[in-house]
Amino acid sequence: MRWIRFRAGGRTGFAALDEVGVHPVHGEPWAEPEPTGELLTLDQVELLPPVVPPTFYAVGYNYADHIRHVAERMGTKPNLPERPEVGYRAANALTGHGQPVVRPADFTGLLEAEGELVAVIGRRLRRCSREEARAGVFGWTIGNDVSAREWQRADRTFWRAKNSDSFKPMGPWIETEVDPMASTTTVTLNGVTAAEFATGGMIFDPYDYIVETSRYITLHPGDVLWMGADATVAMNVGDTLSVEISGIGVLSNPVVQEEPPSAAEENP
Amino acid sequence: MRWIRFRAGGRTGFAALDEVGVHPVHGEPWAEPEPTGELLTLDQVELLPPVVPPTFYAVGYNYADHIRHVAERMGTKPNLPERPEVGYRAANALTGHGQPVVRPADFTGLLEAEGELVAVIGRRLRRCSREEARAGVFGWTIGNDVSAREWQRADRTFWRAKNSDSFKPMGPWIETEVDPMASTTTVTLNGVTAAEFATGGMIFDPYDYIVETSRYITLHPGDVLWMGADATVAMNVGDTLSVEISGIGVLSNPVVQEEPPSAAEENP
Repeated sequence: MRWIRFRAGGRTGFAALDEVGVHPVHGEPWAEPEPTGELLTLDQVELLPPVVPPTFYAVGYNYADHIRHVAERMGTKPNLPERPEVGYRAANALTGHGQPVVRPADFTGLLEAEGELVAVIGRRLRRCSREEARAGVFGWTIGNDVSAREWQRADRTFWRAKNSDSFKPMGPWIETEVDPMASTTTVTLNGVTAAEFATGGMIFDPYDYIVETSRYITLHPGDVLWMGADATVAMNVGDTLSVEISGIGVLSNPVVQEEPPSAAEENP
Repeated sequence: MRWIRFRAGGRTGFAALDEVGVHPVHGEPWAEPEPTGELLTLDQVELLPPVVPPTFYAVGYNYADHIRHVAERMGTKPNLPERPEVGYRAANALTGHGQPVVRPADFTGLLEAEGELVAVIGRRLRRCSREEARAGVFGWTIGNDVSAREWQRADRTFWRAKNSDSFKPMGPWIETEVDPMASTTTVTLNGVTAAEFATGGMIFDPYDYIVETSRYITLHPGDVLWMGADATVAMNVGDTLSVEISGIGVLSNPVVQEEPPSAAEENP
């Protein structure tokens, strides 16, 4: 089953999506939603990030080849994780399928795309078993962990390198009926395949992360866990970057340039 | 004016607090709330963290003496920030005034308290001026940035060192009528003063952080910005740690020990 979050006519909400169309609901997909009885078409709605997470978890390094690649780019030694230790991203940076990734006015480098599997939590989880972790994942979506690598090197935190507005496209929807450990992730730049890898070829899988995180941390319905990427694809203004995970769908976003601030903004 | 977030009889909401009592409202304090007409007393309600932020911003190092102290403890060189670069904490870790800080079952060290000024954002802010930043702060509250220092050293991220459940007490309320740059922060352990510093003695003030962050990031109503601390106070199970910021109030929390998981949980 597919769930979207949408905007239409100034209102936002969740809806089930099938061959017939868009079926809005009252409430959240993981909390016994009630159909409103309406029927919309996909071209009547704007797709939003399929959830706004209470906490936005992200795995930084989870594919061995990618760790070696980034270390080379950063001029550091590869450092493979020995435990599933989760990190974070920020909700302000989320944007939906089809929306632009905006390169900040004062960033002149290439942005880098990382196509990631995203687990959407559907239950409260604390000190959970691996079986409870499996049952606690409501469904799966796709994320693009856009990074400004020069800022990642230069700054004390990831605040603008990874969390600038629009740097976290997520969508197009939540798919509940897939086992993504058997999926393939394909990243295309302007329609040409730029990277392809086994989605499940992770050092630690989503359930490893959920079990370990829940030893200290309560996971809540709507929380998301981005699972890292095995490849980085450089993208420039004017490009369109798509991430497909087989069995889930395609997340696609164009890259645009932010206008510089006006003189009034620069000299407040 | 003081605003609380409360739980009473299975319901949660915001309320204005004055000498007469607790005045619940519909909606959020920064978005034209409507009084419900009810009147409660403080002892009829449980104080919750006064807001659950869409994004939880935190300044790691913002007082020169504290930076030198932590560097010494971590065995590193002090590294004073040259720019106001914000970091993050996680909403799962929030707890309210009077609620216990729970030392995780497998953590045997001392926890460390850091008493911090917290700015609560009341308006959407992007590329804002210093004046707009001032106008965009709805009010002020108090945070205790509890840290498990051994985990901070050992782990790749701050996930459990700073974001374990209950490690982020915040409250007791939001005060809108204070200039905290003139306040004093006093940290007491079991009623005895353990640290005292000028709240405003920061390297970069809240408006510096808001202006710089908003160059790349949209701040939203309800977001919080924790401003760092000038002192660390060790606390043990059985202690009660209070942070007072003059003109705002007192945030007080006991420290308790988490029970170890049962055998069933340990061997799922």
